[in-house]
Amino acid sequence: MGDTSTRAFYEEIRDGSAGAFKYAVNGTWRTSASGSTCDALNPSRGNARSSSFQACTTQEVDEVFTAAKNAQRGWAKTPLHARAKLLHEAARLMRAHAEPMALALTNEVAKGAKDARVEVERSADLIEYTAEEGVRLLGEGKLLMSDSFPGNSRNKLCLASKVPVGVVLCIPPFNYPVNLCVSKIAPALIAGNTVVVKPPTQGCTATLHMMQCFIKAGFPPGTVNALTGRGGEIGDYLTTHPEVNAISFTGGETGIRVAQKAGMVALQTELGGKDACIVLPDADLDLAAKSIVKGGFSYSGQRCTAVKLVAVFEEVADELLSKVNAQIAQLSVGLPEDNANITAVVSKSSADFIESLVQDAESKGAKLCQEWRREENLIWPLLIDNVTHDMKLCWEEPFGPVLPVVRVKSEDEALELVNKSRFGLQGCVFTKDIDRAIRMSDAMETGTVQINGPPARGPDHFPFQGVKDSGIGSQGITNSINVMTKVKSTVINLAQPSYTMA
Amino acid sequence: MGDTSTRAFYEEIRDGSAGAFKYAVNGTWRTSASGSTCDALNPSRGNARSSSFQACTTQEVDEVFTAAKNAQRGWAKTPLHARAKLLHEAARLMRAHAEPMALALTNEVAKGAKDARVEVERSADLIEYTAEEGVRLLGEGKLLMSDSFPGNSRNKLCLASKVPVGVVLCIPPFNYPVNLCVSKIAPALIAGNTVVVKPPTQGCTATLHMMQCFIKAGFPPGTVNALTGRGGEIGDYLTTHPEVNAISFTGGETGIRVAQKAGMVALQTELGGKDACIVLPDADLDLAAKSIVKGGFSYSGQRCTAVKLVAVFEEVADELLSKVNAQIAQLSVGLPEDNANITAVVSKSSADFIESLVQDAESKGAKLCQEWRREENLIWPLLIDNVTHDMKLCWEEPFGPVLPVVRVKSEDEALELVNKSRFGLQGCVFTKDIDRAIRMSDAMETGTVQINGPPARGPDHFPFQGVKDSGIGSQGITNSINVMTKVKSTVINLAQPSYTMA
Amino acid sequence: MGDTSTRAFYEEIRDGSAGAFKYAVNGTWRTSASGSTCDALNPSRGNARSSSFQACTTQEVDEVFTAAKNAQRGWAKTPLHARAKLLHEAARLMRAHAEPMALALTNEVAKGAKDARVEVERSADLIEYTAEEGVRLLGEGKLLMSDSFPGNSRNKLCLASKVPVGVVLCIPPFNYPVNLCVSKIAPALIAGNTVVVKPPTQGCTATLHMMQCFIKAGFPPGTVNALTGRGGEIGDYLTTHPEVNAISFTGGETGIRVAQKAGMVALQTELGGKDACIVLPDADLDLAAKSIVKGGFSYSGQRCTAVKLVAVFEEVADELLSKVNAQIAQLSVGLPEDNANITAVVSKSSADFIESLVQDAESKGAKLCQEWRREENLIWPLLIDNVTHDMKLCWEEPFGPVLPVVRVKSEDEALELVNKSRFGLQGCVFTKDIDRAIRMSDAMETGTVQINGPPARGPDHFPFQGVKDSGIGSQGITNSINVMTKVKSTVINLAQPSYTMA
Amino acid sequence: MGDTSTRAFYEEIRDGSAGAFKYAVNGTWRTSASGSTCDALNPSRGNARSSSFQACTTQEVDEVFTAAKNAQRGWAKTPLHARAKLLHEAARLMRAHAEPMALALTNEVAKGAKDARVEVERSADLIEYTAEEGVRLLGEGKLLMSDSFPGNSRNKLCLASKVPVGVVLCIPPFNYPVNLCVSKIAPALIAGNTVVVKPPTQGCTATLHMMQCFIKAGFPPGTVNALTGRGGEIGDYLTTHPEVNAISFTGGETGIRVAQKAGMVALQTELGGKDACIVLPDADLDLAAKSIVKGGFSYSGQRCTAVKLVAVFEEVADELLSKVNAQIAQLSVGLPEDNANITAVVSKSSADFIESLVQDAESKGAKLCQEWRREENLIWPLLIDNVTHDMKLCWEEPFGPVLPVVRVKSEDEALELVNKSRFGLQGCVFTKDIDRAIRMSDAMETGTVQINGPPARGPDHFPFQGVKDSGIGSQGITNSINVMTKVKSTVINLAQPSYTMA
Repeated sequence: MGDTSTRAFYEEIRDGSAGAFKYAVNGTWRTSASGSTCDALNPSRGNARSSSFQACTTQEVDEVFTAAKNAQRGWAKTPLHARAKLLHEAARLMRAHAEPMALALTNEVAKGAKDARVEVERSADLIEYTAEEGVRLLGEGKLLMSDSFPGNSRNKLCLASKVPVGVVLCIPPFNYPVNLCVSKIAPALIAGNTVVVKPPTQGCTATLHMMQCFIKAGFPPGTVNALTGRGGEIGDYLTTHPEVNAISFTGGETGIRVAQKAGMVALQTELGGKDACIVLPDADLDLAAKSIVKGGFSYSGQRCTAVKLVAVFEEVADELLSKVNAQIAQLSVGLPEDNANITAVVSKSSADFIESLVQDAESKGAKLCQEWRREENLIWPLLIDNVTHDMKLCWEEPFGPVLPVVRVKSEDEALELVNKSRFGLQGCVFTKDIDRAIRMSDAMETGTVQINGPPARGPDHFPFQGVKDSGIGSQGITNSINVMTKVKSTVINLAQPSYTMA
Repeated sequence: MGDTSTRAFYEEIRDGSAGAFKYAVNGTWRTSASGSTCDALNPSRGNARSSSFQACTTQEVDEVFTAAKNAQRGWAKTPLHARAKLLHEAARLMRAHAEPMALALTNEVAKGAKDARVEVERSADLIEYTAEEGVRLLGEGKLLMSDSFPGNSRNKLCLASKVPVGVVLCIPPFNYPVNLCVSKIAPALIAGNTVVVKPPTQGCTATLHMMQCFIKAGFPPGTVNALTGRGGEIGDYLTTHPEVNAISFTGGETGIRVAQKAGMVALQTELGGKDACIVLPDADLDLAAKSIVKGGFSYSGQRCTAVKLVAVFEEVADELLSKVNAQIAQLSVGLPEDNANITAVVSKSSADFIESLVQDAESKGAKLCQEWRREENLIWPLLIDNVTHDMKLCWEEPFGPVLPVVRVKSEDEALELVNKSRFGLQGCVFTKDIDRAIRMSDAMETGTVQINGPPARGPDHFPFQGVKDSGIGSQGITNSINVMTKVKSTVINLAQPSYTMA
Repeated sequence: MGDTSTRAFYEEIRDGSAGAFKYAVNGTWRTSASGSTCDALNPSRGNARSSSFQACTTQEVDEVFTAAKNAQRGWAKTPLHARAKLLHEAARLMRAHAEPMALALTNEVAKGAKDARVEVERSADLIEYTAEEGVRLLGEGKLLMSDSFPGNSRNKLCLASKVPVGVVLCIPPFNYPVNLCVSKIAPALIAGNTVVVKPPTQGCTATLHMMQCFIKAGFPPGTVNALTGRGGEIGDYLTTHPEVNAISFTGGETGIRVAQKAGMVALQTELGGKDACIVLPDADLDLAAKSIVKGGFSYSGQRCTAVKLVAVFEEVADELLSKVNAQIAQLSVGLPEDNANITAVVSKSSADFIESLVQDAESKGAKLCQEWRREENLIWPLLIDNVTHDMKLCWEEPFGPVLPVVRVKSEDEALELVNKSRFGLQGCVFTKDIDRAIRMSDAMETGTVQINGPPARGPDHFPFQGVKDSGIGSQGITNSINVMTKVKSTVINLAQPSYTMA
Repeated sequence: MGDTSTRAFYEEIRDGSAGAFKYAVNGTWRTSASGSTCDALNPSRGNARSSSFQACTTQEVDEVFTAAKNAQRGWAKTPLHARAKLLHEAARLMRAHAEPMALALTNEVAKGAKDARVEVERSADLIEYTAEEGVRLLGEGKLLMSDSFPGNSRNKLCLASKVPVGVVLCIPPFNYPVNLCVSKIAPALIAGNTVVVKPPTQGCTATLHMMQCFIKAGFPPGTVNALTGRGGEIGDYLTTHPEVNAISFTGGETGIRVAQKAGMVALQTELGGKDACIVLPDADLDLAAKSIVKGGFSYSGQRCTAVKLVAVFEEVADELLSKVNAQIAQLSVGLPEDNANITAVVSKSSADFIESLVQDAESKGAKLCQEWRREENLIWPLLIDNVTHDMKLCWEEPFGPVLPVVRVKSEDEALELVNKSRFGLQGCVFTKDIDRAIRMSDAMETGTVQINGPPARGPDHFPFQGVKDSGIGSQGITNSINVMTKVKSTVINLAQPSYTMA
């Protein structure tokens, strides 16, 4: 678990070498006055306890927000290049002390060891890119002249720039507790905001390690804070706290409730998805099959942008599915420590839910292409053919290694299927034909359509957004910085018109 | 009331020449199945009934939203230049048939006759500017390359563009029921959205006339709709309706509740303000006095961007106030038909509220620079000196011709006063000194600071936004179009990297 | 020739009803002190004289530039919306008085009557679009903060905006003497520049009529000026004149010399082209054939963006050419007054040059798909198959209704052919396959590549540019405005850092 | 001269430890076939020879351009993040091996030792900033829709992006031979161009050391090349070479000739300046005095943005000049090795020219505030009062530590003085008054006006440009990248209109 220096680096975040992890406020790590803790379990080990965290109280929530608010103005008055420098340092520390963070991902969310390491590396890349993006985006405002509008001479100069919103509450999900946390806090910080992070229970350890890299990088006390605890106790208290100025949430249905309860705060939510893969008759079927397996089964399907439905034209369905099944047969199933392709899903309740979806589909006539197999949280990869609209699997997201296939006869039928979903995150379409590709993409009511590739959140500077119940507000590095700022205008009213010359 | 052709133009919006006004759905004007109406009163005539409107039912609300939803896709597939052409036509019709609209403003919100006409003209300008702005803003998307981000070659091209959000609910306030309605519907329409307008009770007649100009311009049925009724009956039903995709609201406290109840919809609210005018010792006092009187008493102070507090340095206070009082003495008080500077405030309850603020201030030691005088809704202009932090007038917005003055001794004292307010719309500062001007503007926590000029929403292409309880989301033509769109990305995954050459 | 009012409108631009046309300086029309004139001929009527123009002297050139220079500052200090209003008025006048302008195009450049009218209409559209584009592009500058760069705090605010370059010399070509003149002067004018136009000899009458629409629109004296005369006498004098700040030139080889002689002035040149049309085996051959005939033979091939070479894959060549030939057989040949598809080319020397290219190709083994036929300037449409690299027709642009076809065996062979040309204006490629389309477009060294469509300059807001000997600087409305401006920065150095808050 | 590793790092750029420096082509350092060399002298040591360089032949020029051209396409097909990584590595190497580069600046251009080191550091900053700027600027193109323009449906999608121009010829000046070289090559390289550098004679050694950092960073052979030689022999050959696609030149009058001879290539020139400092009566005189001394005498006045003229209002002139003179008295004069404030000017001819300007001014009645003193190239700092329009010093740039003062009576008189100059680089104005500051800035015909600060090229991301004889094209990091790119458009013509939805 890392070398000596790495062990020392993380020492203070934990109550002794085997005790509960602490929470971070005002630059220091503390135990809660509640005296109570909550646990993360190991999905691969019969959901045995993996680690414990402070169950913070509402009073501690207040203290954290006070710290964040008090630190904000000073941080916002730090030169952009100096803010960027601290972010670069945090990225450097994450690379240097990646090991325990990656291990935590393996233990708590059953992420393959190599993938866990990739998540940390990709997160450091994201931080660095965000720092430089912010230096530019926030270092440039608009100069607007009054005489564009009828009735005005040029005697008003409007200097409009982006200013921080204040305190940003960041709530990442279990599946990427490092990457989907830095994608929130890095934009928030470069923009001059301070952050309060509420990690997911599963994955919490990884998030807290990551937070330590920021604290050690030298961000001023109060700039980066992390609270842990039970959602049922402090969830609403957090999201409706009067000191919250923006909420960036990634997760499931909870996000809809967050949106409904929040007042006049900036909102960025990324919730569920049911990304469909439409395969047209002229598609490159090898490419499509490869993308379906990668898109559907990577990290056991526990990705917001996983392929969660295949809509294939009848005339190429058999050929496509035979290619897909051949590749599924090659997937290894086992422990994340061994880098198995398919590992345990995050919880028993998740596995139970997946099983119920499969049973419902099978009972209504769907055809299982592989034998159903489950051991505790571990579910073997499964393609289910002949899925129809009356099956739950057609509309619900399993968030596991189970992929339904609907056979369609026309573009319209495929589009109807996609657009009937209450989700609208991404979709993909496989065809060689330009006109068809654009026509299908235009008609698919999702935030993004991938032509000839699987759904993907990255590269991280691309816009990333869901529509309908998949969320509100665009993400991606640039868009996230924008969400976490507001506009301030200074209008200079001049005694005489100003038409500058050179 | 306009010539024959104008009378004919508006004929269908009313149930006979003296009956209740109708509501507009799917391109036609209808009476409500409720059989019930609500009234707008004439503030200048003892609040006598001025006109009546349909009290629509929740079922009619559903019908209107269905119409708007059904029309949206077709409208969004109309070429941008064709959308713009219809907006230009609506503007032309407003100019051609301005008279009854202006008269309604005079009758229902006691707006001076000339100012009423100006509101219509300025609204036509706004529509035209919005049309051309939208042609450009929506006709250009981004082309993003994947190889900017580490680890990627240029084999993904992301085509990101702005697409309509869907149905936009527009709720304008009584004080500018034409201008603050077109500032919502014009951006919504050019962006390919359809709109549902809920006019204010006072001013409703003017809004409905304006809607007729859009309908007659040839927008497809269902594109522009207007619902009338009692807020208590259909207010929440409207703002939480599942078919609403964005809400643009201008008004008062109600807006906060709208934000709290709305789910994952785009929000643009502009609520109250308490715009302060800070006068520094080196200011041009003539300019400051003129700006204070214009800013504080135009339209009897019933403007969101009215000057609602003067913070003047003690050493120049007497001189400034003597200039201000001399100008106040010149203000005419009377009927809007006569273009009096000061006319009746919108309602009896508003006048009562203003009176209570004055009484509270006087009882706590404030000095009235003019005699208090009120006749029904009509309140004579009043400057109140020596206002202190313990008086309600220091923090509440009177929305009437009453202006409090606080004397300050330092920049910090002035800034503390401004930043203690729960509002943050605009502020202004008068000083000749560049460094002081920028320093004060930087520190004032409002959406906009005017240097050496009164607060102002326009010119209409400038960004316009409040912070804190003054609202969320930036307005101004460009920003409003942005709020009413979302991002759609099409990512082309290529078989080989694409580095184009020329 | 137009109604009475139109006749009166243009009266002053000519020396009596049959005399020579005048030149325009400082808002008035004058005859040259040279006492000498030059003639435009009628290509359809045996090159008989069509009209005469002043042969201006170098002293008159000086006077025109003095007028333009003197007017510039005042014009640049006119509010943007007021500049735009004048451009809208010029467009309105062009539509209202289009007839004589269109007729001149028919007489002097043998443009079909309907197409001539379309040129005027499209030019009015362009002016209007440019006006509104400029209002936005020039009404917005950048506000840059110093603290983006290492070592700086935010104590410098840079206000950078676009300012006019000064006097713009506009030299349009004969083939679109109205459209390619407004595409230069409208951007120049909205940006606050004044213009000096040197019309082509053929087409001069149309240009001068157009200028009158600008003068009558109310542009201040000296803002729009037009000089006529012999290139040999005043050409270099014009292009190297010390008062020239930018040159926008469209034409042929002369443009290269203009570039070589010009000093530190902004340059925008659009010269020759040899746009190739590559037809891949999977192309929609009907679409390709239609595009080739439209692209190759519209206005008898006298367009910079005409298809001037077809590169077709051997396996589909016969089928494609048979479709093309069938359509060529339908083209009418005759007088522009009769809206014949093919009309006389602009001059005898042009016809002779075309004939020489055909003879050279035929002598080297090319196959004429139609019989060669010429009567004076009138040349019948001709497709020439089996063209090879050793024929001049493979590299020279005929600028007439003669279209060479090269048969190719591979993408590489097609690309080599395209990229060997010294020109690089546009090219087009026909294929249904996305990957192929992007791969070909990437590799074609031209300013623009059209996928599945013929080369085209428009829509006029698209960027339009040539590379290599086809020119320098991008055109299109937005880019042209940019070329005709320069940057002015005002840097405010503050006593303390400015981090504004809201 | 640096440690062992640094010595080894630079070993190959020189012909033995005391021999002539080599030139760089295709990634290797070579001696010229000419067998001839040219010398740089040491201005502080009686213009004794400091080092020698290859006098390259025209054939070698051809070889260098061939190398650059051959390397360009491959380099342009390198992912943006990979290009950026190489630039970051070059910056790292410059910091690591700064010493010999800084020493060369001290020896050849008499730059103070500390300032020399700052130049290297600032150059590394610039490279890093440019790398990240390019990643963003070049990784984003525009997606334009056809239906913005009248008459079009949305069936054309235009993908416009920035592509490299090809080979960029970079000619830096003697005064910043490192910084003003990286400000050219870094933008060129990140944009996918290859570069040919022609260093100045004085300063050549520093430039060549810098080039080695790029070569060692791992840029592909042919990407970065450096040619040395006599301007008289190869100057025109270089600037008119057919393989040159863009020229970035900083220097003096030569630049005008470069512009006049160049053909259709992109031009960026920054030539002379005569930056005036206008001091208004209400100015902060301490700040003005400090800025004048810093602006006028830093690096002995040998900066393009040095203050080269003071225009002070009569009523504050005595007070201002007394403050300036007091500070001048504190300036040390001596050797660059000792970090003297004032060091020898670059050449004997430069010193002679300065002396002639002073004699002319004195003979016409100007008042020398300090005694005239010169020893070889070393000139003592001198303020000259009562300068009038008839003196050469009023219009010529001394490029030395001699600063003329003109006393003025009005803003108009000051502006006339500034605008009569044939130069238009920067200017500065000192006043506390906003209106005055903007009014003066608007009227000053220079590329930049500094309010309350001395002229300055940086921070390096600000736009930087001269007008009139001071140059063409804007610099600054962002603008330089733009100058070194051109637009390529791919237009996708679709079978049906594309209105995408989400």
